[in-house]
Amino acid sequence: MSVRMHGFVRYVRLEDALKIILSNVRQAGTELVNFDQALERVLAEDVVSNVDVPPFDRSAVDGYAVRAADTFRASDDKPVRLRVVGSIAIGSPTKLRVRKDEAAKIMTGAPMPTGADAAVMLENTRIAGRKLDICTSLTPGKNVSARGEDVRAGNIVLKRGQKLRPQDVGMLASVGKVRVWVARKPRVAILATGNELRRPGKRLGRAETTDINSYSLAAAVESCGGKPQLLGVVKDDEALLKKALLKASKHDMTLLSGGSSVGKRDLVPDAISEIGEVLFHGVAIRPGGPTAFGVVRGKPVFALAGFPVASLVAFDMLARPTLRAMQGLPASRGYPRVQARLMRKISSTLGRADVVRVRVRHVAGRPLAEPIRVTGSSILSSMTKADGFVIVPENSEGFKEGSTVEVELFSC
Amino acid sequence: MSVRMHGFVRYVRLEDALKIILSNVRQAGTELVNFDQALERVLAEDVVSNVDVPPFDRSAVDGYAVRAADTFRASDDKPVRLRVVGSIAIGSPTKLRVRKDEAAKIMTGAPMPTGADAAVMLENTRIAGRKLDICTSLTPGKNVSARGEDVRAGNIVLKRGQKLRPQDVGMLASVGKVRVWVARKPRVAILATGNELRRPGKRLGRAETTDINSYSLAAAVESCGGKPQLLGVVKDDEALLKKALLKASKHDMTLLSGGSSVGKRDLVPDAISEIGEVLFHGVAIRPGGPTAFGVVRGKPVFALAGFPVASLVAFDMLARPTLRAMQGLPASRGYPRVQARLMRKISSTLGRADVVRVRVRHVAGRPLAEPIRVTGSSILSSMTKADGFVIVPENSEGFKEGSTVEVELFSC
Repeated sequence: MSVRMHGFVRYVRLEDALKIILSNVRQAGTELVNFDQALERVLAEDVVSNVDVPPFDRSAVDGYAVRAADTFRASDDKPVRLRVVGSIAIGSPTKLRVRKDEAAKIMTGAPMPTGADAAVMLENTRIAGRKLDICTSLTPGKNVSARGEDVRAGNIVLKRGQKLRPQDVGMLASVGKVRVWVARKPRVAILATGNELRRPGKRLGRAETTDINSYSLAAAVESCGGKPQLLGVVKDDEALLKKALLKASKHDMTLLSGGSSVGKRDLVPDAISEIGEVLFHGVAIRPGGPTAFGVVRGKPVFALAGFPVASLVAFDMLARPTLRAMQGLPASRGYPRVQARLMRKISSTLGRADVVRVRVRHVAGRPLAEPIRVTGSSILSSMTKADGFVIVPENSEGFKEGSTVEVELFSC
Repeated sequence: MSVRMHGFVRYVRLEDALKIILSNVRQAGTELVNFDQALERVLAEDVVSNVDVPPFDRSAVDGYAVRAADTFRASDDKPVRLRVVGSIAIGSPTKLRVRKDEAAKIMTGAPMPTGADAAVMLENTRIAGRKLDICTSLTPGKNVSARGEDVRAGNIVLKRGQKLRPQDVGMLASVGKVRVWVARKPRVAILATGNELRRPGKRLGRAETTDINSYSLAAAVESCGGKPQLLGVVKDDEALLKKALLKASKHDMTLLSGGSSVGKRDLVPDAISEIGEVLFHGVAIRPGGPTAFGVVRGKPVFALAGFPVASLVAFDMLARPTLRAMQGLPASRGYPRVQARLMRKISSTLGRADVVRVRVRHVAGRPLAEPIRVTGSSILSSMTKADGFVIVPENSEGFKEGSTVEVELFSC
């Protein structure tokens, strides 16, 4: 039964739509990258260290390596006098041995000499001719970084599925993991359909408009770890659409904007049906309701609305969790969340999730969320003015002014 | 007076350290980029639209363009009958004129015909032979996207100093701003000093360790919009250090790790003094206390501790806000924040800001922060295991178990 003839067959709930999508995608595969190119990539393996870090006992301070037992009675009033038997430099092994009542000068990071089990800071010593007074008592291990205290050989130091941060890149360096398996960035084909669309910056004829979605969607793909591939604008013609969708199916995912409502020219779901399968058409969200999802040659295809807000919101609700899941991350939107006080009430319709754009500002350290007034799904400025959004779930008619709501923040 | 002889002259408060730094840096300059390469760049100009968006009145629905006045008495029971005078396609201008008691078929996004001031959705109409029944009353402007309702020519649509998100890239497309001025990415020279340092993956001799900081700092620079330039490891030799620092000063900023405590080999602040100026040495933070800051040939130089945690934390507290300021962003760390319940007490020393790494987990939707137990500034795993950090300010001795603390999250 053609969707063209009957309008949206049914509106799938947001949660169910996401389930359908996730059961029809698979992870994007893995690739080996150099550790210094791995920032923000998602690990595809548990990283196990083959080495101890630090690799040897070393001093954590500038001072003297000593035997802790020699210092047990030492204090500022009653220092313990030791004999200095040498000095240990950083970077070269030492053959020094520290015996009873002896000390060796040592730098931060230098290897502890045999016999010594603690280091005393320079500030807690006094030079007395060729002797040294220790003015504090030390317990064994004091001021020593013990071999393996950070990482032991055999430890899992980073886990499959985590996104690498600067300290994680440091850890890869630390354990000598110079090549690492990460999730391949999903390649996402981006198409727009509409006879009226022109490239940004082109002078518009009457009745023509600018293709916005290709670029906002490409940026959105990039912002969640995907690799956008702009395939351009397709005319509203079923044969051309099918050809473009087949070409796009060489990628890991296709995002097509426009042509997803029920008018005469809304050919996309039909085109998908003929070369693949439409799994839903219409999601109970606003904006973004006229969204369809299908599979062509085994690859997921999102048919997003033509309106820029509708396509971006549907991307965030459906494609963003999917792209994250394809990289081995949780299938969430992954935006930071903040609890905020609502400055004006939000009304919503039962049975549909409303994605309400809000501004967030802080008054006396407390976050306040102010819904954006103009909210049409063609009004892109409602998103550029927003700091984030509040979701009113299907079973809610909205939130009262003054209530505490959870805001997801676009960025920070 | 040599810092070598007298130890840390004074510990500068974190806030004061940042003030000193910010008064010694300038913005990194600007560059012109294509709008589709501008994601996450910081705008260096206010973007003013030269055009109205949408550029013409257009229908927001699939249905019929009508004169609202003709429908004022219409209802489902008592429809108003109109004559269909034509059909308007998307993408081409129309010469149609809708007169009293007339309607024109119209698609979403198509230009409204002269005379019509509202659009009725297909669902609210019935075909009656060659006539059309309108089953609802419409107010003027209903279901019409008016020219300029999103953006008016002359409006500032995006502001200098904002970081561009996907919707902002869409807005650039929308107003035809295909080339845009953004802050140039600050180029940051990265040096490590230490005779003991080897490149990651190299087999370590006895007493040697791996250079971690160059890589974690490079990633940290990248993560806040800078462009890291790895200049490698410098031996602990003042002449070599000065040479390396002079070479590094061609960049916008230098980060040098290691050699910043007060031992015999701590040559960095002295080297900076000889070719430039040291503005502070020692900051009242932990970890990261042994941090110096200076200026060489007009360029900021951060001399960070050699311990990987100390160098990364000092980067976050001092260099990260600086790099953001150099791009025109607020001089903050810019991490997302969350209020969390503290699972175990944190003790701290008065007079020093403690940066306490924490794990965050959610129980029944509420975030709980658990301080990481092992916290030495050489223990990088204390940062790889952490989700974020809590700062105990200088005037606090810590936080009680169960209290609410603000956590800054490394990422999400």
